[in-house]
Amino acid sequence: MRNLEIFDSTLRDGAQARNISFTVEDKLNIVRALDALGVRYIEAGNPTSNPKDLEFFTRAALLHLQNAELVAFGSTRHRERTPQDDPLLQRLLGAGTGTVAIFGKSSELHAREVLGVSLEENLHMIEETVRYCVQNGKQVIFDGEHFFDGYKQNPDYAMRTLQAAASAGAMRLVLCDTNGGCFPDEIAEITGKAVARFGGMVGIHCHDDTGCAVAGSLMAVGAGAVQVQGTFIGFGERCGNANLSAVIPSLQLKRGYACIPEGQLCELTATARYVAEVANIVLPAQLPYVGASAFAHKGGMHIDGVTKLRSSFEHVDPASVGNERDLLLSEMSGRTSLLHKIRAFAPGLRKDSAQVAQLMDILKRLEFEGYQFESASASFELVVLRHLELFSSPYRVELFRIVGEQADKQESKLSSAIVKVQVGERSEITAAEGQGPVNALDKALRKALEVFYPEIRDIRLVDYKVRVMEPQRATAAKVRVFIETTDGAASWTTVGVSTDIINASFKALTDSMDYKLYRSAKGL
Amino acid sequence: MRNLEIFDSTLRDGAQARNISFTVEDKLNIVRALDALGVRYIEAGNPTSNPKDLEFFTRAALLHLQNAELVAFGSTRHRERTPQDDPLLQRLLGAGTGTVAIFGKSSELHAREVLGVSLEENLHMIEETVRYCVQNGKQVIFDGEHFFDGYKQNPDYAMRTLQAAASAGAMRLVLCDTNGGCFPDEIAEITGKAVARFGGMVGIHCHDDTGCAVAGSLMAVGAGAVQVQGTFIGFGERCGNANLSAVIPSLQLKRGYACIPEGQLCELTATARYVAEVANIVLPAQLPYVGASAFAHKGGMHIDGVTKLRSSFEHVDPASVGNERDLLLSEMSGRTSLLHKIRAFAPGLRKDSAQVAQLMDILKRLEFEGYQFESASASFELVVLRHLELFSSPYRVELFRIVGEQADKQESKLSSAIVKVQVGERSEITAAEGQGPVNALDKALRKALEVFYPEIRDIRLVDYKVRVMEPQRATAAKVRVFIETTDGAASWTTVGVSTDIINASFKALTDSMDYKLYRSAKGL
Repeated sequence: MRNLEIFDSTLRDGAQARNISFTVEDKLNIVRALDALGVRYIEAGNPTSNPKDLEFFTRAALLHLQNAELVAFGSTRHRERTPQDDPLLQRLLGAGTGTVAIFGKSSELHAREVLGVSLEENLHMIEETVRYCVQNGKQVIFDGEHFFDGYKQNPDYAMRTLQAAASAGAMRLVLCDTNGGCFPDEIAEITGKAVARFGGMVGIHCHDDTGCAVAGSLMAVGAGAVQVQGTFIGFGERCGNANLSAVIPSLQLKRGYACIPEGQLCELTATARYVAEVANIVLPAQLPYVGASAFAHKGGMHIDGVTKLRSSFEHVDPASVGNERDLLLSEMSGRTSLLHKIRAFAPGLRKDSAQVAQLMDILKRLEFEGYQFESASASFELVVLRHLELFSSPYRVELFRIVGEQADKQESKLSSAIVKVQVGERSEITAAEGQGPVNALDKALRKALEVFYPEIRDIRLVDYKVRVMEPQRATAAKVRVFIETTDGAASWTTVGVSTDIINASFKALTDSMDYKLYRSAKGL
Repeated sequence: MRNLEIFDSTLRDGAQARNISFTVEDKLNIVRALDALGVRYIEAGNPTSNPKDLEFFTRAALLHLQNAELVAFGSTRHRERTPQDDPLLQRLLGAGTGTVAIFGKSSELHAREVLGVSLEENLHMIEETVRYCVQNGKQVIFDGEHFFDGYKQNPDYAMRTLQAAASAGAMRLVLCDTNGGCFPDEIAEITGKAVARFGGMVGIHCHDDTGCAVAGSLMAVGAGAVQVQGTFIGFGERCGNANLSAVIPSLQLKRGYACIPEGQLCELTATARYVAEVANIVLPAQLPYVGASAFAHKGGMHIDGVTKLRSSFEHVDPASVGNERDLLLSEMSGRTSLLHKIRAFAPGLRKDSAQVAQLMDILKRLEFEGYQFESASASFELVVLRHLELFSSPYRVELFRIVGEQADKQESKLSSAIVKVQVGERSEITAAEGQGPVNALDKALRKALEVFYPEIRDIRLVDYKVRVMEPQRATAAKVRVFIETTDGAASWTTVGVSTDIINASFKALTDSMDYKLYRSAKGL
């Protein structure tokens, strides 16, 4: 297998995405995860523009990384300073990484119009900056900003910027599609030209503004690039960067490149989910390879096909990237997928048993009422477990009441809720306030249950979704509520349906509590 | 410009995505939106597997579409039946569309292992099914399922499946990368071979399992494909389909293809947001061209660059696709479009007036709080009218109370609400029951207002939608409620935001009543 360098910029380019903001602790955690997975370079910040990043590099120096090398990011020297006198450049060197990434303008237009320097001066800036870093013991990766757009306007000048960096000792020349507007065929063609001239020192850096960042990266590798830059789950400025969690398995499983150490690919999904969690975003379900839906099958025909022949609707084995096949239940699917799901927790059940037929009926009725179990597998599991008498709720809700009062249509006051639960001979009545009736109910129910089941304290709701069905019935329509819960070790989703949003929410809430109690009874 | 056919499968392949479930009303709304935008074909369902789709086609036949043609989707005949005897095929023809899409196996492996038929029989199934549809007056688009994987295993057989469809009269031969595992260079090469043989009747259908569906589609067009199939905002089974909202502008703006009628491209973003709204999903912010972040600039250097030279960090002009640059929201373009909207009902207003600046501030604050006026223009109009003192609500809500009570978690009883409104010296207090608290409030508010304003009787709520924002805050998150109302002559949408769903609904309800009173005062 040929080696290919994976250069992750989640902590630098990724941090420029909307809604992303990392603490120093977050960054250290992501560095550890990416190092464990085995990426080659981690671009971890821009110490010249962000003081927090300087603290990060000081602490990161104490990490004992196994696979990765940290990279600090900065730009060419100021146009009116020497490298020695440029305080930003001094700060970059001060980050103490063995490798630095230096970006410079590879486009005539940008050198003139944005930097406001002559074309010759821009070349000097690149060459002097790279040379100064090399002389100070750094390995230098040169990022040619706007290289592709620059090449289209003035190919000769774009190549001269790379030449300037190469002569000064840069070890990689990275071609950046900074605006993300190039198509993969253009990327392939132009990368091929750079490779023809500079050989095996060319890298690629794509943005996703046309939705082609991953494809552009793959095509560049096909044209001879030896390094792919991107962010681990694709987030970055505007539409994001090349999504490395898609680039890595595509190259490693299908094109014979060694991107990360052998045996580590099965950690890909877990790493992606971890990075999303630290970044505090929901990992998009449809993300290639690592998303929750990446191997989910809904159409009955697809489910039938995939159980007959794995490869019929799966381009790779989900296990190879640490993901799982998921057969979704829906009006389009049938008994095969149901049985497959049930067997996960009731392995003895036969396809032709009466219980399976009864369960089909129960589930069909619930789906007809508006339940949707494909994204609420915990509620599905509870329906099955209850029917098979493998679980029953150990408590009973005797009453719940909302006390909502509103003086006028100005912003809401707190709502209050009363909940009474009974466990055996004992009962507990309690109240709580919250932002809106559902939040109040959630809090009151937990308060009451915690008296009996301290493990309820471990759980936390992480998502709450409402879908109005039959919208033409307007406010009398049914609503479907999904609640996602985590206890730190696992997370699960439950569903409730009713014409009353409070009632629907309460069903999903009690299912969520029940599922925790079931897990806890099973010692999970 | 060369013509390129856009074939949208949001309502068929898109409906196979996790969490997507369309009502018939939803589907009709999406058809209207895609037709208005100008896509060529809308694959709207599979009447052979889903009875709801049959109802849809009956109602859809009454739409007067301007640009698009509806397509019903089905498969080749059953292996043991003639087309005449195949009830599913009869149902497909019964959908009454002028065009049908027929999928058949283009892979030797799948014909043998999944369908369980001989290779010759599979060819007969394709040919007879296509011919039967053509003889019944249908235009037939043949989808060669697993064409690319099939071609890699047995190129000759894959081509024979296309030939079978072509000889039987299919008007398009669509090459499907059903598993989504092919790379764009393979797609380009193999599509080129099919084009060499069948000329200008080849289409492309990509899935996003490697993150390359858009790129694969573009490369196929480069190789001569004349039709691109995909879903409008990319959702579909597993990782989704080729995202047409990225394919269309890339081909139209950068490669000189006419995909939708001239002048319609600026409706792209609004259409994407509308489709997401109807599908009840959050439009991913980083979606190319149409996402909220697609032209958002965060890095200071990028902001500096983009204001010096538009093209420095924008690959196309955001206005060309109806999107906006984010940092300019308060500047010229934002104000221009705002003014444009305001002038519709306050023609005298000047661009540099203090009132316009104040309105900008008010709207920005409301949007920050979570209001979204794009799909709630009645609420937008009321904000402006109230600020310009062209309208004020003639009544005041003195109180509203919900009396919700629940004996246990069984199906809900009716909720009750009390509302008191004041008009001048008079006031009216009344109560109503409804299915859930929002429905009860709606009824009580109308009862109280009808005493003063009999025209309130004419209105009827036709749609009620809830969207949870900041979902990670779970039940304490803010919710946004949209209500659509009609009085028979017109319909309008209003919005309310709060952490409390009842409060948010009440805001949208009172705006809806206010808007009716405003219309009635203007004699509309």
